[in-house]
Amino acid sequence: MPRTRIADPADPRLDDVRDLNHSDTRPDLPGGKGLVIAEGPLVVSRLLESRFPVRRLVGFPGKLDAFLDEHDVPADLPVHEVSRETLAEVAGFDLHRGLLAAADRAPEPALDDILAASRTVVVLEGVGDHENIGSMFRNAAGMGVDAVLFGNGCADPLYRRSVRVSMGHVLRTPFAHLGGTFTTWQRSLSQLSDHGFRLVSLTPDAAAEHLADALVDDRDRPWGKVALLVGAEGPGLTEHAMRATHVRARIPMAPGTDSLNLATSAAIAFYERQRSLR
Amino acid sequence: MPRTRIADPADPRLDDVRDLNHSDTRPDLPGGKGLVIAEGPLVVSRLLESRFPVRRLVGFPGKLDAFLDEHDVPADLPVHEVSRETLAEVAGFDLHRGLLAAADRAPEPALDDILAASRTVVVLEGVGDHENIGSMFRNAAGMGVDAVLFGNGCADPLYRRSVRVSMGHVLRTPFAHLGGTFTTWQRSLSQLSDHGFRLVSLTPDAAAEHLADALVDDRDRPWGKVALLVGAEGPGLTEHAMRATHVRARIPMAPGTDSLNLATSAAIAFYERQRSLR
Repeated sequence: MPRTRIADPADPRLDDVRDLNHSDTRPDLPGGKGLVIAEGPLVVSRLLESRFPVRRLVGFPGKLDAFLDEHDVPADLPVHEVSRETLAEVAGFDLHRGLLAAADRAPEPALDDILAASRTVVVLEGVGDHENIGSMFRNAAGMGVDAVLFGNGCADPLYRRSVRVSMGHVLRTPFAHLGGTFTTWQRSLSQLSDHGFRLVSLTPDAAAEHLADALVDDRDRPWGKVALLVGAEGPGLTEHAMRATHVRARIPMAPGTDSLNLATSAAIAFYERQRSLR
Repeated sequence: MPRTRIADPADPRLDDVRDLNHSDTRPDLPGGKGLVIAEGPLVVSRLLESRFPVRRLVGFPGKLDAFLDEHDVPADLPVHEVSRETLAEVAGFDLHRGLLAAADRAPEPALDDILAASRTVVVLEGVGDHENIGSMFRNAAGMGVDAVLFGNGCADPLYRRSVRVSMGHVLRTPFAHLGGTFTTWQRSLSQLSDHGFRLVSLTPDAAAEHLADALVDDRDRPWGKVALLVGAEGPGLTEHAMRATHVRARIPMAPGTDSLNLATSAAIAFYERQRSLR
């Protein structure tokens, strides 16, 4: 493989990992270069196995040696050795993990294909926090959710922080954005109904059904296909979105407490879904 | 109430909130001043309602006005008005929330009293991360867990970050440290058995029982008292701790995925416990 040592921080071959935290020019901005950046051996290995075309691997010599000893990489993949100091200057901060890969974004799978192949999906609305998006993917993957669908107002799942927090699961679990604008995206939920999905809103509303009841029919059998809708912490799902679902479900909370973190609530719903299927 | 405006950052009355992030002299270090620091109106109000003796309230004038309009505070509680600049210099960083309270630590409730009054407790071992401790308390409070017990090697629940992440629930949910050293603390779990607790270890081990089965007896009735044991992310519970429990329980994970975040796993166990009791 074409392994090269780069000492000059201005070398354009390092542009893929330049200014990683700089808000305007960071390489993972969808409007800019729109790359996917993976950090650390686990996430880099998941990027290499993913549908995203990997452009290059960058790392400290020892970290590259260790990684390449254990992983097969395409023979024509550029691999760049850099010192800790050089990488810190290029990235804009000290990257102590010392191993990065950059890939191009790839088109999303078609919604119909996702829906046909899935038994359980989660639909997010207004989830603007990259860390929550990442945790959501990690929890979804861990508990057998087949895909993540985005309604309006969600943060970019391929932002570096989301990729990292997800432990690379945003690179593995299929996701797609539902069409429409802020006020109309909910209409595309009918596509899910058309595919036979039972649509379940998650809400703290005490009048909603217990989550355990919402995921089974009136003879206690699990629904064949379930879509769990989750809104942002605080505002929750819009009424518009909830009206497009079959049922509203709640996780019972002790009196006088606050609602759970978004990714935690979703994890509980994923668990209950999996439990209903056992 | 004795409300005073303080402009001099060196004023000793501000020592309770001085160098808040400084690793050696921060006022919430157990070995040092050992104070409890609350930030923001919600957590400050929970501190005022707690068993911890509040020493003073410090804030921007507008933030204090807003808080004192809505909350009763003891007539003799010192209240200090400071500017944003003064507070930033005292604390060592910009505290944009602009409202703080400091309290003394208070003795832990007696373990026997906690155990007699509790139906569900969680026992932590080796959980060294303050954020995980805080999330654990938030989730425990939200889902009706009565107390948090600490085995060996856990981070301080009253550290500022734990208090903040818990949304103040470390100030409300009773907690206590179990006795003994690294290798002997597990013996004190017998006190829990003596109080009739069913001890349940949480583990990713595929040979363990499904969580749902572990929380009910062989006639599907929930155990009257349950203690859930949770270890650190990564190493998990020590074998020694698991051997002291009645049953090992797992949250089923999809193949090829990673274990869940510690506080998320615990939240699922709290949910299942609450579900078994409905």
